[in-house]
Amino acid sequence: MLVQKYKDMLSGKSVIRELSEFATARGQEIGYENVFDYSLGNPSVPAPREFTDEMIRMLTQMGTNELHGYSPSLGITGVREAVATSLEKRFGLPYRKEHIFMAVGAAGALAHAFRLVTEPGDEILTFAPYFPEYGPYVNLTGAVLKVVPPDTESFQIHFAKFEEMLTEKVMAVLINTPNNPSGVVYSAETLERMADLLRKKSAEYGHTIYLISDEPYREIVFQGVDAPCVSAFYDDTIMCYSFSKSLSIPGERIGYVAVNPACRDAEDMVYMCGQISRGIGHNCPPSIIQMAVAKVLDKTADLSVYETNMNLLYHEMTELGFTCVKPGGTFYIFPRALEEDAKEFCRKALQYDLILVPGDTFGAPGYFRMAYCIDTEKVERSLEALRRFVKEIYR
Amino acid sequence: MLVQKYKDMLSGKSVIRELSEFATARGQEIGYENVFDYSLGNPSVPAPREFTDEMIRMLTQMGTNELHGYSPSLGITGVREAVATSLEKRFGLPYRKEHIFMAVGAAGALAHAFRLVTEPGDEILTFAPYFPEYGPYVNLTGAVLKVVPPDTESFQIHFAKFEEMLTEKVMAVLINTPNNPSGVVYSAETLERMADLLRKKSAEYGHTIYLISDEPYREIVFQGVDAPCVSAFYDDTIMCYSFSKSLSIPGERIGYVAVNPACRDAEDMVYMCGQISRGIGHNCPPSIIQMAVAKVLDKTADLSVYETNMNLLYHEMTELGFTCVKPGGTFYIFPRALEEDAKEFCRKALQYDLILVPGDTFGAPGYFRMAYCIDTEKVERSLEALRRFVKEIYR
Repeated sequence: MLVQKYKDMLSGKSVIRELSEFATARGQEIGYENVFDYSLGNPSVPAPREFTDEMIRMLTQMGTNELHGYSPSLGITGVREAVATSLEKRFGLPYRKEHIFMAVGAAGALAHAFRLVTEPGDEILTFAPYFPEYGPYVNLTGAVLKVVPPDTESFQIHFAKFEEMLTEKVMAVLINTPNNPSGVVYSAETLERMADLLRKKSAEYGHTIYLISDEPYREIVFQGVDAPCVSAFYDDTIMCYSFSKSLSIPGERIGYVAVNPACRDAEDMVYMCGQISRGIGHNCPPSIIQMAVAKVLDKTADLSVYETNMNLLYHEMTELGFTCVKPGGTFYIFPRALEEDAKEFCRKALQYDLILVPGDTFGAPGYFRMAYCIDTEKVERSLEALRRFVKEIYR
Repeated sequence: MLVQKYKDMLSGKSVIRELSEFATARGQEIGYENVFDYSLGNPSVPAPREFTDEMIRMLTQMGTNELHGYSPSLGITGVREAVATSLEKRFGLPYRKEHIFMAVGAAGALAHAFRLVTEPGDEILTFAPYFPEYGPYVNLTGAVLKVVPPDTESFQIHFAKFEEMLTEKVMAVLINTPNNPSGVVYSAETLERMADLLRKKSAEYGHTIYLISDEPYREIVFQGVDAPCVSAFYDDTIMCYSFSKSLSIPGERIGYVAVNPACRDAEDMVYMCGQISRGIGHNCPPSIIQMAVAKVLDKTADLSVYETNMNLLYHEMTELGFTCVKPGGTFYIFPRALEEDAKEFCRKALQYDLILVPGDTFGAPGYFRMAYCIDTEKVERSLEALRRFVKEIYR
């Protein structure tokens, strides 16, 4: 018999997917350039030239067995060394290859992190608004994801609720800063306060509460914004990184787990990741992509368009009277809808060919997400549609 | 706290890995060309020129967002169509893209197949000699791998033992033909008899017993050997394929699940694989590699060296008095050791710089595996060492 829990999941429809399908269909009617599709977090800028050049150089110059051969299950040794060196230089923590496990994107990294520190029935806390895939990512391991309600003033952490929910059953706390969907970057003050609480509760409960830090947007931080290194605040931090957004290569599935060198059993943890891989069919990321990213670790795609787009949208949204926390990074903005039911609000926006995603999906009803990883020219054209939408429906 | 079951796995040492480390160390002493390393199943022939050319063409001609963008979670649609068309042409079964799920290598494909059809506590049967990674692959899902003892006459299936072990708890049977480590190809007679038994027992128990067919060696079949298509014998077959061996690109992690079109709920199964992915951090194979293999589906690396090597070794082994089933494919041979304890036999062989792997690892004590995916010139030089080993120790 087929396993029922996966069969049952087939009937659940993803709101983002439905919206994206609507956008595609509407695009066929009026031309996709006229659909203001803010639904998908798919990087829009080209990968850096150096990445492509390195791929071509290896394909041209290296033997195919060396290039396409099996990678060790923890990742290619030289690649792990290069990642450790880059992290040490960047953040001043003594990373060594022994702390680095190469993974197929952040999803792969998280799959290992969750299994490292939770058994079925254990709880993982995250904070709304949050990336909705965390639900199945965690719950299908047998652990349970619990969501702390948002602090809607700042989209930092609602500490009163957090402390209330940080019970003895919680084995890990999962954060995502810069944040999808709010665009907010957790401040040093937030991270310090969180770390203090985790230390206090770890001592009280007699077990380590690990901090799992999902950082795919680490390189997309706007001018004047301080984006502190999460691992520097809390020893027992497991960093999960992906190159998808920084290098604009989301399809190539490359990222890593970086265990804080100060974490107890740090080196065992990386070997344990290798064992976890065997149970989930992971077997390390593609060799050629590992070797290529190792050569461009300190490069990024030209990410400036995201800040340009953010400024255009933030300015317009506040002008139009939206309540909106200014994003510090990512390519998302998360304003309050102009009516209580954000789903209804987003449904009405479709009449203006504006594809917005209701915040319910992210654990924050009443808000909506715009993913502005699109051409600036299109953002500019969308402003008129936004104005008409607001004036005609809400004035 | 770190999860104990993964921590405990760290103390278990892989025999193959230890042997391979010995070979590397010995190679540093006497030159690796003088170590007859038959331990690792790592393809030795170059990837086909067409694969490399296609990679370079795409990197040169395509936009990076198109090339490196997110793949749909079931795989890129055009790639799934191409795989289905190729399978239909090859095997005459009506495969469509709806039956194809792209996966990161055979390990990724198997991780999905096991979760599709088993719940924790269910049993999966496989046949000795078998690929030892099946143990953690299955057992870490919560299901239980049980191993049917070998038919050492032919390394086909020991049907008496099979029928005895095929209880109501068995939800799937896992086969690997051409087989690692025996090199044997299951005959049409074996497959027919197995299918008959599975149909009978499925009816008797009132649940489908699925057949999971792990086929990474499908393209390495020697002259005159008939390698029947497993799926043609049994409707409820889940084929798990990898391009690692056929294209000599094991590091690039690319393969697929192909659900038999005649399988009940075949199309649901592929969507269910997409759900399973969310729980194990899978998220589909790298886009560029998907697109590249789609262009060379009916090509292989030049695999002829494996047959040349097999003939040299088989001839020499039988001359030296080894009992040995002639391989029909793969790059493995699995003779009987010259003393009861194959571990002791392999330990003694090390004195002659022959790296052989004891069959205990594969569920067949008393036998040993040679992986002859090495240069023919080295195989030829190893024959003298083999002769000396046998004469000096066993005559």
